Amino acid sequence: MSRIAFIGLGIMGSPMASHLAKAGHEVLGHTLNSNAYARLEADGGKSAASVEAAVKDAEIVITMLPNHPQVEEVAFGEDGIFAHAPKGALLIDFSTIRPESSVAIAEAGAKAGIRVLDAPVSGGQGGAEEGVLSIMVGGDETDFTAATPIFEAVGKIFIHVGPHGAGQVVKAANQLVVGGTYALVAEAIVLMEALGVDAGKGLDVLAGGLAGSTILERKRKSMVAREFAPGFRIDLHHKDMGIITDAARQADVALPTAALTASLIAAGRAQGYGSLDHSALLKVIENLNGRGEQ
Amino acid sequence: MSRIAFIGLGIMGSPMASHLAKAGHEVLGHTLNSNAYARLEADGGKSAASVEAAVKDAEIVITMLPNHPQVEEVAFGEDGIFAHAPKGALLIDFSTIRPESSVAIAEAGAKAGIRVLDAPVSGGQGGAEEGVLSIMVGGDETDFTAATPIFEAVGKIFIHVGPHGAGQVVKAANQLVVGGTYALVAEAIVLMEALGVDAGKGLDVLAGGLAGSTILERKRKSMVAREFAPGFRIDLHHKDMGIITDAARQADVALPTAALTASLIAAGRAQGYGSLDHSALLKVIENLNGRGEQ
Amino acid sequence: MSRIAFIGLGIMGSPMASHLAKAGHEVLGHTLNSNAYARLEADGGKSAASVEAAVKDAEIVITMLPNHPQVEEVAFGEDGIFAHAPKGALLIDFSTIRPESSVAIAEAGAKAGIRVLDAPVSGGQGGAEEGVLSIMVGGDETDFTAATPIFEAVGKIFIHVGPHGAGQVVKAANQLVVGGTYALVAEAIVLMEALGVDAGKGLDVLAGGLAGSTILERKRKSMVAREFAPGFRIDLHHKDMGIITDAARQADVALPTAALTASLIAAGRAQGYGSLDHSALLKVIENLNGRGEQ
Amino acid sequence: MSRIAFIGLGIMGSPMASHLAKAGHEVLGHTLNSNAYARLEADGGKSAASVEAAVKDAEIVITMLPNHPQVEEVAFGEDGIFAHAPKGALLIDFSTIRPESSVAIAEAGAKAGIRVLDAPVSGGQGGAEEGVLSIMVGGDETDFTAATPIFEAVGKIFIHVGPHGAGQVVKAANQLVVGGTYALVAEAIVLMEALGVDAGKGLDVLAGGLAGSTILERKRKSMVAREFAPGFRIDLHHKDMGIITDAARQADVALPTAALTASLIAAGRAQGYGSLDHSALLKVIENLNGRGEQ
Repeated sequence: MSRIAFIGLGIMGSPMASHLAKAGHEVLGHTLNSNAYARLEADGGKSAASVEAAVKDAEIVITMLPNHPQVEEVAFGEDGIFAHAPKGALLIDFSTIRPESSVAIAEAGAKAGIRVLDAPVSGGQGGAEEGVLSIMVGGDETDFTAATPIFEAVGKIFIHVGPHGAGQVVKAANQLVVGGTYALVAEAIVLMEALGVDAGKGLDVLAGGLAGSTILERKRKSMVAREFAPGFRIDLHHKDMGIITDAARQADVALPTAALTASLIAAGRAQGYGSLDHSALLKVIENLNGRGEQ
Repeated sequence: MSRIAFIGLGIMGSPMASHLAKAGHEVLGHTLNSNAYARLEADGGKSAASVEAAVKDAEIVITMLPNHPQVEEVAFGEDGIFAHAPKGALLIDFSTIRPESSVAIAEAGAKAGIRVLDAPVSGGQGGAEEGVLSIMVGGDETDFTAATPIFEAVGKIFIHVGPHGAGQVVKAANQLVVGGTYALVAEAIVLMEALGVDAGKGLDVLAGGLAGSTILERKRKSMVAREFAPGFRIDLHHKDMGIITDAARQADVALPTAALTASLIAAGRAQGYGSLDHSALLKVIENLNGRGEQ
Repeated sequence: MSRIAFIGLGIMGSPMASHLAKAGHEVLGHTLNSNAYARLEADGGKSAASVEAAVKDAEIVITMLPNHPQVEEVAFGEDGIFAHAPKGALLIDFSTIRPESSVAIAEAGAKAGIRVLDAPVSGGQGGAEEGVLSIMVGGDETDFTAATPIFEAVGKIFIHVGPHGAGQVVKAANQLVVGGTYALVAEAIVLMEALGVDAGKGLDVLAGGLAGSTILERKRKSMVAREFAPGFRIDLHHKDMGIITDAARQADVALPTAALTASLIAAGRAQGYGSLDHSALLKVIENLNGRGEQ
Repeated sequence: MSRIAFIGLGIMGSPMASHLAKAGHEVLGHTLNSNAYARLEADGGKSAASVEAAVKDAEIVITMLPNHPQVEEVAFGEDGIFAHAPKGALLIDFSTIRPESSVAIAEAGAKAGIRVLDAPVSGGQGGAEEGVLSIMVGGDETDFTAATPIFEAVGKIFIHVGPHGAGQVVKAANQLVVGGTYALVAEAIVLMEALGVDAGKGLDVLAGGLAGSTILERKRKSMVAREFAPGFRIDLHHKDMGIITDAARQADVALPTAALTASLIAAGRAQGYGSLDHSALLKVIENLNGRGEQ
């Protein structure tokens, strides 16, 4: 069991910290939203008044934050991790951020004597609550091994996919495929309905063949019924498409389908659907065709 | 058991006709490639010298042909089905063609006293050989019921999805999703490799989460290994994207992701990959990025 | 001066026929909308009760019709041109249709002893009224030369661009560039306005530099003012994008920007803007961004 | 006449500084490439050993640098403009950078007592050498008026388009339209050539009608001849598409045609054409169609 500082108790971080506390780790949490402390304390953790207070005796520091500016501030700031965590501590960043930021954080960590893993997750709020996240880990093999008890407490699948930043790259690839698949299913629904075909029956057939996917399995009924309660919000997927766009630019690669998908998701946000589930990409395609109720 | 005329003994039609013959139906086949008769005869069927000879005493007429001009010629021609099949016969068209052509054939059939179902399949050559095709059926419910023994002999899943043409619409939706998913997986691979990540490991993670799909399950290893033996050829998927484009135009709907996918598949054909498996869309994305061997 | 049969007195054909009559040609018009005869007769032409009556003594037959099915019916039908025009007559088809249809008509014409030119025009209703159309001509050089007096009466620029169908190919290329330029200008306006910049001033700068175009020159003020009275209707541009899509498929070329433009124009039609000017593509981009009034 | 510090004597800055010196201004230049000093001195200017030395007595400070990190370093750095320029000086940034960076620089300038204009230019190396650039200016009206003598020395058209950052927004819109127009012309050429039409003649027709543009006027012959000497390099246009992508994200707008254009330009860079003129987008479209020589 380890002494863990957990920074960021949002809708993902809060259940993850609770799983760690319930697994017997000594969890000291810090977050901007003080309402989140009650749950952690109920599950056996404690709250810390500052990042410094949380990390100063930690063996493992965990961050689960919205995007790279927040992670960078918490890592690099005067009150931050690299200034106050003990040498030899292991920073596990579960946040989804740009690969290049993960690399920069790892390099700065190395100078500060802090080992770093980038470990973005997929599975959403549901996966976090149930402790069955998929975790894509970038960094040193030995650090990955050392982090195994942590990953076991919050996830079902965790794979070491490469060096620093590689976890973020795989997460970016994941979000590219997920976002694009929603666009494809949305266009399939609009095509079938426009031609008078029962889209529910049609998707049943698609789900059973080469067009089948986890998205069709889990979301086809709610999409056909136009139920878009999140789930994973369009605003967050929009953020992730920005990471993909940046990563593609950094890698000097052209990804036209990703670029179009990013446009459609940005349109969803611009049309006011940012708080809906990302399957609401269907509304974007409907509106494009003058078919939505609005 | 029925007297069946089977027109079109190609790589799909040949095993399908054999399954029907082996199931005990009386199958009279006709095709342009006379090499295909040997297999049918070995499996208990017979060959016919013309469409007229095949259909003149048939209870059920089956067509499995490349595209709508061939189906229309065989249906409407002087030597064709509507001219020579007995009134009351049932035409099951397994070909993948434009929905509007299926509707026109059904209307002409009604005038000629021939009932018609459009019943395009998915599952490819493998599915045809194993008799486990998925079949999407458009037409009258009673005709669908009457055709059940036929569908059971060649398929595993068969669903009545709507009126005449609806089977083709669902097939179009299927090919839209399949083609687009290949593009997405191809872009994910190129992104990961360009950033130094092992795409095989990365796709293993994707396959297990919300990005998972039948394509990732069956094709991720061969795609990463750049093995593109067909399977379903790019040339055929290009034909199917043309059907989607036509159907969208007929339905007055805009499908931007489908349009981009169609461009990428057309590029695959233009680059000389028409005879490779449709997963070779990866080569198109690689070449776009100057990364292919060429 | 020639004896001319003019088939199709619509908003383009009517002024063109009048220009020919006023230039001294003997013009016998036929059209489905009999209201159009008054103008032709006022300008010195005559009306004919049928295609047969119009063409039976003609030296030159002109068609100006909506799309290839109409041209094909008038050319190939029992009451049509090839059945009734004198051998040696010259058919000039000003319609915008698929290149392959123009080739087929020319081949059928050759068998019937009728010479054929495809001669689609650009310049719109305004250009037709003023007699200053641009004409892109495909066919034999000698026929082009023979048609010069006709072209001079209705156009300002007329260029022989290649063999049968080549005029249609150039017209398709023209519509591709025009449609795409509207999409680009629309996106530029939305970007500037979203960032608080006066789009009118911004487009003034663009119009003067490398981004300058005839569209910016003629349409930037009306676009910024959201004035979309046609001009050239979105429905017609949608038809033309279909010709481009077909031509690209026939030529086995992938044109991704054209495909996306076609989607956006189709969306304009689906959103109910078919009767507006094609510059109303701006409304499609605005709606995509939740910025239109609707 | 003013005392001017000119930072950045590259292929654009060098001729601009010379024009200012020849117009009678007292120009003190500083640049990283010391070879550039000879020309400035020959034209009446002087060289400075550091940014500090250049700006410390300046009335007007000019920057012409590759991208926002360079401008920010020169503006904000310890040795930089805001640290060493006299209060009341006017900073004119001719660089093309992100609108948000221009806003941030103006805000920091205000605190340091330095007035700031963003004034990106179009017209390329040729326009800079001839002193006929188009200049899009963001900032305060009074500062724009004060800068008139500077703009007159290097440009032909200069327009005040709005507040700080507005110049960059208009430049972004300009590059969006320019890049997209190259893609459209490239696709038009490939379509015509694939269908056997002389693209040179075809583009002659297009240039004279509604499809006409400055790009068709200046570049159609070189594109058809496949002459791609720069001009404005693909690498630079790729940088500018990044600015457009960032600006669209900041403004929360979806620009699908811009996104696709950005992909095609990124592909040009990835295929090794970064040092060619941006009209080499034609090579990207050709390669996509397996038609390039390579």
